[in-house]
Amino acid sequence: MTPSPAHPADAGPEPVRLMVCTSCRAVGGDPEAPRPGAQLLAALGEAVAADPQAAATVIVEPVECLSVCKRPCTVSITAPGRWTYVYGDVDPASHAAPLLAFVDQYRATADGLVPWRERPEFIRKGVVARIPPLR
Amino acid sequence: MTPSPAHPADAGPEPVRLMVCTSCRAVGGDPEAPRPGAQLLAALGEAVAADPQAAATVIVEPVECLSVCKRPCTVSITAPGRWTYVYGDVDPASHAAPLLAFVDQYRATADGLVPWRERPEFIRKGVVARIPPLR
Repeated sequence: MTPSPAHPADAGPEPVRLMVCTSCRAVGGDPEAPRPGAQLLAALGEAVAADPQAAATVIVEPVECLSVCKRPCTVSITAPGRWTYVYGDVDPASHAAPLLAFVDQYRATADGLVPWRERPEFIRKGVVARIPPLR
Repeated sequence: MTPSPAHPADAGPEPVRLMVCTSCRAVGGDPEAPRPGAQLLAALGEAVAADPQAAATVIVEPVECLSVCKRPCTVSITAPGRWTYVYGDVDPASHAAPLLAFVDQYRATADGLVPWRERPEFIRKGVVARIPPLR
């Protein structure tokens, strides 16, 4: 999983942090079933493992709670010098690959602002909040 | 407004950034009236000016849009090494001073996590999202 020093992605910006809330439960979901965030995390892990570039471009990490709670799955995307976004209503069954594709779009921008028309619909509809670059 | 080098607050942590969204409009609000965020910004400016400590402990700044939109006023609180929070439903007429008091509570923590029971009610109810320390 460690990219070689010659990996083309090494020349690009720092990896994007993709945080997945693993706390929230789906309304009416089976309390014994894995939580949506755990399912999304597993799907992202598989997608990252299948993409040789991804290990150098995205860091997927679980977080305990993003305080959104009512819109699982909730994720946050951030990178140094860029706007940070929080998105809800991410579907673990269908959004892992599109989410990683969107992370690539985000990473390709200087400030994290992907043009509206280039955002996939689940990203447009799922936005919970954004925060200006912190440094 | 510039604190002297001997100002006690200089010995503490870095100032907290309090960002106020100035874009969103109140539902049914007078389109000619100042927007809620502009009103809150003015109220915070007055409160900061009246508190000799505040200039060294908080940086109040307008931001264009936090993408919350439906819960004006929306604000974000952040500081290096701490959780970042986004809050909605902040009332420009009554919450400026309590918000600055809460910023002091936030600043007094190591990680930005003010214990639940110590949070004022408008902060408990207004939370939109939180994001782990970014560095």
